Amino acid sequence: MTGSLVVAGLGPGDQALVTPEVTAALAAATDVVGYIPYVARVAPRGGLTLHASDNRVELQRANEALELAAAGRHVVIVSSGDPGVFAMASAVFEALEKSPALHNLDIRVLPGITAMLAAAARAGAPLGHDFCAINLSDNLKPWALVERRLRLAAEADFAMAFYNPRSAARPHQFARALEILREACGPDRLIIFARAVTTPEERIETVTLAEARPEMADMRTVVLVGNSSTRRVGRYIYTPRHAD
Amino acid sequence: MTGSLVVAGLGPGDQALVTPEVTAALAAATDVVGYIPYVARVAPRGGLTLHASDNRVELQRANEALELAAAGRHVVIVSSGDPGVFAMASAVFEALEKSPALHNLDIRVLPGITAMLAAAARAGAPLGHDFCAINLSDNLKPWALVERRLRLAAEADFAMAFYNPRSAARPHQFARALEILREACGPDRLIIFARAVTTPEERIETVTLAEARPEMADMRTVVLVGNSSTRRVGRYIYTPRHAD
Repeated sequence: MTGSLVVAGLGPGDQALVTPEVTAALAAATDVVGYIPYVARVAPRGGLTLHASDNRVELQRANEALELAAAGRHVVIVSSGDPGVFAMASAVFEALEKSPALHNLDIRVLPGITAMLAAAARAGAPLGHDFCAINLSDNLKPWALVERRLRLAAEADFAMAFYNPRSAARPHQFARALEILREACGPDRLIIFARAVTTPEERIETVTLAEARPEMADMRTVVLVGNSSTRRVGRYIYTPRHAD
Repeated sequence: MTGSLVVAGLGPGDQALVTPEVTAALAAATDVVGYIPYVARVAPRGGLTLHASDNRVELQRANEALELAAAGRHVVIVSSGDPGVFAMASAVFEALEKSPALHNLDIRVLPGITAMLAAAARAGAPLGHDFCAINLSDNLKPWALVERRLRLAAEADFAMAFYNPRSAARPHQFARALEILREACGPDRLIIFARAVTTPEERIETVTLAEARPEMADMRTVVLVGNSSTRRVGRYIYTPRHAD
């Protein structure tokens, strides 16, 4: 068993945000596995097999990658952003847990620029103080838990980043999340909608919670909410380092 | 006023984790400003002036960079990790707030691989579910607020990342943080001490909260705490994507 598995983050979209470590791993790969639009970011070449699969088949994709690596291939699973943040790394270890025979496989996770940090950089420094990251999708957890975490995060006065805020399959939950935030944080709290960050379709919009509308987010949007001190300076948004 | 200011993240240490975007910004700079060990990571060359300063002078450093940019220089402020996570970006906007004449200055923040994501990648996928990031230093906020956030984060069952867990000036607070976590999360919760990640001095150690000792952390350590489902698989630590 001399194969290997690398779980690599491609960053938010711009090639200038792909780390040299990930570029080198892709250059050494025999197989690249991932969700269709992420695999499409890898240049085809001789000796490299691309395995593109649909969304929502993370475990199946992780198993496929483990099997290829166990068969001696040098496999890279690609995620957008960072593979450890609501992406493929956790799915790979979940699949590994069910395959004890593979526990000695050579697996490496290579970090990437995750969407919330790319979005924060574009806006200024909205995550410049303690913050949290919440996946708003209830595919893998009950919605009640999401609501509970939103309330506790507001009580802790964390700045917040939301991944997967809204999809066609569940259009009403993000409206509910905004309601909870308005109750807990007040109408003047700043909220940033960052869509397709660092790609040609990038759009960054900052409004108050009073002005926020559910339609401002879709599945390509990461949403950032400031803490009670987050403010505008010139055209930037920042959260002060200090707190009372 | 045709100067510019870039606030760039150098990542956790390994040059292979510096994004091409940051490398290009450094190649175009006339001046690099930053804390001594970070400026030391930038190769000297003709036409580039290096301005290295001591720690704990973030605002002064931000002002110096703004003044150089206002005078027409192309300035890069370097942070380790990501500049927006407990680093220089917030200090720059704080300095900008006090200098309204400079609000039209060309300022860009370039993201980097922040320590918690590099550490998580080395360990496996401990931040694979909702998580929070807390700066444990009380230089800029009351310690009582840190304790409050630890309790709320545990109540929300967030995985957690702690920056600046312990310094010579405040050796006892991290012991108190561990006490609070043991009370709130129980003795079996996994905690990862990741020191000098991606450098030759890297050391990653995973223990339970019962086994954790304050001396396991210093100022070069980022500490990760799992949520209630975080577990070992083989030699990796991961947090499942799903929750009940």
